[in-house]
Amino acid sequence: MTLVTLIELGAVTSSAVFGILLAMRKKMDFVGLFTVGFAVAFGGGTLRDLFLDRHPLFWIANPQYPMLVFVLALVGALVPRRLQHFEQFISWPDALGLGLFTVVGTRLAVESGCHPFVSILIGVITGTFGGVIAEIICNEVPSLFRPAPLCATCSFTGAGLLLILLSFGMNWTLASLAGATVTVLFRLAALRWNLRLPAVHDDVPAS
Amino acid sequence: MTLVTLIELGAVTSSAVFGILLAMRKKMDFVGLFTVGFAVAFGGGTLRDLFLDRHPLFWIANPQYPMLVFVLALVGALVPRRLQHFEQFISWPDALGLGLFTVVGTRLAVESGCHPFVSILIGVITGTFGGVIAEIICNEVPSLFRPAPLCATCSFTGAGLLLILLSFGMNWTLASLAGATVTVLFRLAALRWNLRLPAVHDDVPAS
Amino acid sequence: MTLVTLIELGAVTSSAVFGILLAMRKKMDFVGLFTVGFAVAFGGGTLRDLFLDRHPLFWIANPQYPMLVFVLALVGALVPRRLQHFEQFISWPDALGLGLFTVVGTRLAVESGCHPFVSILIGVITGTFGGVIAEIICNEVPSLFRPAPLCATCSFTGAGLLLILLSFGMNWTLASLAGATVTVLFRLAALRWNLRLPAVHDDVPAS
Repeated sequence: MTLVTLIELGAVTSSAVFGILLAMRKKMDFVGLFTVGFAVAFGGGTLRDLFLDRHPLFWIANPQYPMLVFVLALVGALVPRRLQHFEQFISWPDALGLGLFTVVGTRLAVESGCHPFVSILIGVITGTFGGVIAEIICNEVPSLFRPAPLCATCSFTGAGLLLILLSFGMNWTLASLAGATVTVLFRLAALRWNLRLPAVHDDVPAS
Repeated sequence: MTLVTLIELGAVTSSAVFGILLAMRKKMDFVGLFTVGFAVAFGGGTLRDLFLDRHPLFWIANPQYPMLVFVLALVGALVPRRLQHFEQFISWPDALGLGLFTVVGTRLAVESGCHPFVSILIGVITGTFGGVIAEIICNEVPSLFRPAPLCATCSFTGAGLLLILLSFGMNWTLASLAGATVTVLFRLAALRWNLRLPAVHDDVPAS
Repeated sequence: MTLVTLIELGAVTSSAVFGILLAMRKKMDFVGLFTVGFAVAFGGGTLRDLFLDRHPLFWIANPQYPMLVFVLALVGALVPRRLQHFEQFISWPDALGLGLFTVVGTRLAVESGCHPFVSILIGVITGTFGGVIAEIICNEVPSLFRPAPLCATCSFTGAGLLLILLSFGMNWTLASLAGATVTVLFRLAALRWNLRLPAVHDDVPAS
């Protein structure tokens, strides 16, 4: 089991739990729980694999991942209390998924020969897009585009750090750990202290 | 003309008519009719082909399909009454498209070497995603995610039956017919008797 | 630098400015400006490349494009007045992007061996889809599907003209210029005189 596989397993689990808890709060049925969990867990990675032309897609190559999400959704539907114990930690799976997917996405883009800037973007898309899809499904305006605690910025920072450390000769394992850790801590801090980017100030009169 | 082609032609026609009638009820113009018809007819299959890396996409390989949808949309725009004769049968094209696309999608996934569970999921995505896109375009919350008559569940059941019959050695033609028939009848029954999955019961107090 | 590259650069710039100005009017932050600019500039072309199985995607192969959008979004965030000078010309970048992307998309589809009708559709998708994504992100019902000035129709006309001129033996450069010019002028005329398609008249009583 490679490091990428291990990180991916952690990211899939935490993202799926995040999505299933979101769907439970929306009083969806089992299909909704599974779909939102699936979308959060695999949405960003699917885009990444399609963009980089990596086949088979990671959830097709690893059928145990969608089966894991199916079981987690079943647990959510049958014994909701069991999964809701995690509710108080809701920001943890969110932040963990963001950090782990960012690092995996950036790494795979670099290995595909992408330019560093493009690699960072693909890391950010991998990390954030699952949440965007989930919010669209749940009929909320994606928080990525509303004034909201930093998310893409945390992912961008972690992916950038990963590339900088690599360029200084650090090995993949340590650089990935550093990039993911910074993303997760930055994201948790943004949620804790409500860190935001300012809205663009539009002071030119319309007429 | 292979069996898959024949099934696909039926699914494209019924799905496109379903989409065009939906757009007509929303008082869209010709572009809207064509777009919604196109989205319902090709949305699920396009995702399937992208996920399985099958190229050219089935509507690029079969230009007669998009041209057929174009003609159907023209009929809808110029002589709406002609197409509206089908309005009373609106649940039929919906259910037929669901059943036929489910079977084609599952089959192509199996032939691409996918794990059985993943093949079922791709069958369900092929069968249901066109409708999801159409509802997003028409600015409705996709019924797949609201309390609504069973849809994905019917598709899942038919795809599962197809795989079980295949594993018992039944040939593709018969197993496909059985899978599609069960999906269609299950869907029509769900619409007729309003069969639903229960919403997940959330009885843990929020505080 | 080939003609296609030059046209693409113009289309990326004008589309990105269009998207960034849209996000500024919605009072988004820098992430929003960049995302909407990115979506308008690369949304249609990404779909085109995925549909035609062209890899690497054009913004992955040309990292200077996403960097250009990044800089434009920074300008929008830091010195909004500077970018807003273009506000009065807002319909120009929109129409230019539509015309240029339509021509590039149609051309690449023809070169991929697509049927003429499919090539036109891919040209229209390339030209219009960026705007559709941007409006979805900004939580507006896409104007492509509402009664609104002609857009897809202009793109369809320009793409069709391009193919007709090619079939008469005109060279790519001249035919592309003609197709793009007709699309741009037709779009500007549609905006100026509010040209629309009629909504489909639904005069059959519902009961």
